[in-house]
Amino acid sequence: MIEVIDELYRDRNISELKKYLNEINPADIAQLLETVYDERERVFLFRLLTKENAADTFVEFDGDTQENLIIAFSDTELKEVLDEIYIDDAADIIEEMPASIVKRILKNTDPETREAINTILKYPEDSAGSIMTPELVDLKKDMTVEDAFKRIRRTGLDKETIYTCYVTDASRHLIGVTTVKELLLSDAEDVIEDFMETNVISINTLDDQETATRTLTKYDFLALPVVDMENRLVGIITVDDAIDVIQEENTEDIQKMAAITPTDTPYLKTSVLDLWKKRIPWLMLLMISATLTSQILTTFENRLISVAVLTAFIPMIMGTGGNSGGQSSTMIIRAISLEEVGFKDIFRIIWKEFRTGALSGFTLAVVCFVKLLLFDRIVLGNDALTLTVCIVISLTIFVETICAKIIGSTLPIIAKKLGLDPAVLANPFITTILDVVSLLVYIGFAVLILHI
Amino acid sequence: MIEVIDELYRDRNISELKKYLNEINPADIAQLLETVYDERERVFLFRLLTKENAADTFVEFDGDTQENLIIAFSDTELKEVLDEIYIDDAADIIEEMPASIVKRILKNTDPETREAINTILKYPEDSAGSIMTPELVDLKKDMTVEDAFKRIRRTGLDKETIYTCYVTDASRHLIGVTTVKELLLSDAEDVIEDFMETNVISINTLDDQETATRTLTKYDFLALPVVDMENRLVGIITVDDAIDVIQEENTEDIQKMAAITPTDTPYLKTSVLDLWKKRIPWLMLLMISATLTSQILTTFENRLISVAVLTAFIPMIMGTGGNSGGQSSTMIIRAISLEEVGFKDIFRIIWKEFRTGALSGFTLAVVCFVKLLLFDRIVLGNDALTLTVCIVISLTIFVETICAKIIGSTLPIIAKKLGLDPAVLANPFITTILDVVSLLVYIGFAVLILHI
Repeated sequence: MIEVIDELYRDRNISELKKYLNEINPADIAQLLETVYDERERVFLFRLLTKENAADTFVEFDGDTQENLIIAFSDTELKEVLDEIYIDDAADIIEEMPASIVKRILKNTDPETREAINTILKYPEDSAGSIMTPELVDLKKDMTVEDAFKRIRRTGLDKETIYTCYVTDASRHLIGVTTVKELLLSDAEDVIEDFMETNVISINTLDDQETATRTLTKYDFLALPVVDMENRLVGIITVDDAIDVIQEENTEDIQKMAAITPTDTPYLKTSVLDLWKKRIPWLMLLMISATLTSQILTTFENRLISVAVLTAFIPMIMGTGGNSGGQSSTMIIRAISLEEVGFKDIFRIIWKEFRTGALSGFTLAVVCFVKLLLFDRIVLGNDALTLTVCIVISLTIFVETICAKIIGSTLPIIAKKLGLDPAVLANPFITTILDVVSLLVYIGFAVLILHI
Repeated sequence: MIEVIDELYRDRNISELKKYLNEINPADIAQLLETVYDERERVFLFRLLTKENAADTFVEFDGDTQENLIIAFSDTELKEVLDEIYIDDAADIIEEMPASIVKRILKNTDPETREAINTILKYPEDSAGSIMTPELVDLKKDMTVEDAFKRIRRTGLDKETIYTCYVTDASRHLIGVTTVKELLLSDAEDVIEDFMETNVISINTLDDQETATRTLTKYDFLALPVVDMENRLVGIITVDDAIDVIQEENTEDIQKMAAITPTDTPYLKTSVLDLWKKRIPWLMLLMISATLTSQILTTFENRLISVAVLTAFIPMIMGTGGNSGGQSSTMIIRAISLEEVGFKDIFRIIWKEFRTGALSGFTLAVVCFVKLLLFDRIVLGNDALTLTVCIVISLTIFVETICAKIIGSTLPIIAKKLGLDPAVLANPFITTILDVVSLLVYIGFAVLILHI
């Protein structure tokens, strides 16, 4: 692909180059122009695209490229691109641009579009309203199938999707929904009202975007209607935008679980200072909360020295507790995101994790015991590992695994119930709690059995 | 909703109940029947659904409910449901059923469907072929728009999507693609060949399902065509199935990062024994690999006792290293999944992480130093924390943070390059490596500065 373009470009064979470029899918052109060509070449090649392809390519670029292109555009060119792109994409672009560019963009859109863009920009971030587009096909209930097709043909070109059609009354209340498939399978003279779906599933502008994508996914919709407080249809969320939201929310959850403040900037585009800002508060918090473990160890320092071998196993004990609890909290946090479990299931979860913990703890304790006696004591020659020391370590592993599983699985559920974010709680706080619990169990058994 | 159904059910008002039930969206009926009603009631209510609603509801149930319903069904009923559901859904159901049920299902499908189901079942798990459906609209290039609509009207009812139409030649080679939108916006006598898109993006049956969903998402398709080795069109993957795959793959990645063998069974449906099986190998591996840290500590035991206060800070040191590295590895693993970074970026990543690590390490070290001297020493009265001990701890934090960031970010990339799964490597191995590195840095500085 690149070779052909390069050759045509070198030969200044503009007509062929134009033809070739316009046959490539806009997502691929955007990737190509962004990664292979410099700014001058990019502007040149971009100008060869047809109006429609140019717009489709433009929305695929990242913010920096879009900004540079807008600066290179004449007002006429800018207007041409803006006329073709969907309102929700325009709103997305505007959100990322500096004020001077925003001003130029708004100057070059017609008043109606400008108002629509402003409406979307006014909705809170992460709300359904902020990701919807007003470009939808609306029908009236007394239209025939033929009327409906006429309307779709007349207005469909500029709609983000034409396949789901919404039926509204005179005051734009959403009263029904139908699809092009149903229209195609009906007779030309059938009236919409007679076969439209009246049990319409919709979402409110202020609902969370995650609720929106979950609803769309649950019902396998291609688009989800968004209504205002008075049930008036104001926009739709299309499935391709829903997928972007799903990926964004997944990235956020994963970052939170790893104790990072979420960001939707791609890794390579994030500056060192930004990376630092997203990570340092958590590292700091966790480092300072580790004061607890240091304090416990300092308190028992003199006792622990009396059986010095015990300290060598502290990392293993704390690691096992952390891993056991981390497995449970991760599974539960994911199940909460996917709405598979809720607060009502807390006792089922505790019972399940108690049994899993007991089984896992028992297995680990037995293996640990055998390994300590056979490998650490005999092979590695660690004579300090007496039978009772081995018992203390193995018992700790058994008990801490059960505690870790129960704590790891219930805390996210309780967090959710309290309106906190389960994912944020995951690593950061659960790990600290588990560290303390593991240490206390260990020292407890040491005091009890070894009388340190 | 439930109240209405209960009342109609109690009053045995079957005709009203039937009407009411059939107006509810199948995804909601399935949820209702599964969570609120017992088996007898479920079978009764299910039988009130129209053929189409029954099929749409049936595919929404989970495996156990489906199995029980099939057992309750007569052969005629089973056949009716099977006739309505899509081939890919039938294949999904069959995969989860015991042999006796599979036999009954296959007995009650017509030979053509049976063959189609068997074809899909033969593709490797997680391949594009295993999630596709053969029910698509295919057109010929010499058809007019009118012909196309006739064909869609005649065969469209049973197709999983009619909106993307594929153009094939006599030997089913995929030569073009068009959409119902384009058809609607064209004139009745236009010929498909003149406006179809010939630069068709497709995927091979044996490609990974993740590649399939990534392609579909990249191009914002509603369906992605799947071709065999000879470029013959054999099926499509629709966007709703792609979303399910995306969620599945995300769950898998999250589970792997938390050191759990991935499972796609919902949490509450997973048995204790299964939970144990998915978790214990990793816990065991990590516990045993912690032998390394125990071994290091045992080796330096006598030296560490000479400055006993050092051991109290081991958990904090190891925790900080683990958290720093975990942040980097998580960000990189996610960036790899989203195809934002690749092996070619390794030096950019190292450089970025080195600077982020130096900045973070410096901040942490300074805060730690001040905290140790002012809080631990003065407030908590820990006199063992001399100036040189505080320097050793703070220097360790500075150096280990840099090491952790570089190790955490490069290992996933190298794993990917070697064809290993970056997510599996994440927590399990990186943590162990980071633990060892942190300890060695700590002991190193202690030997160097405190001459222990």
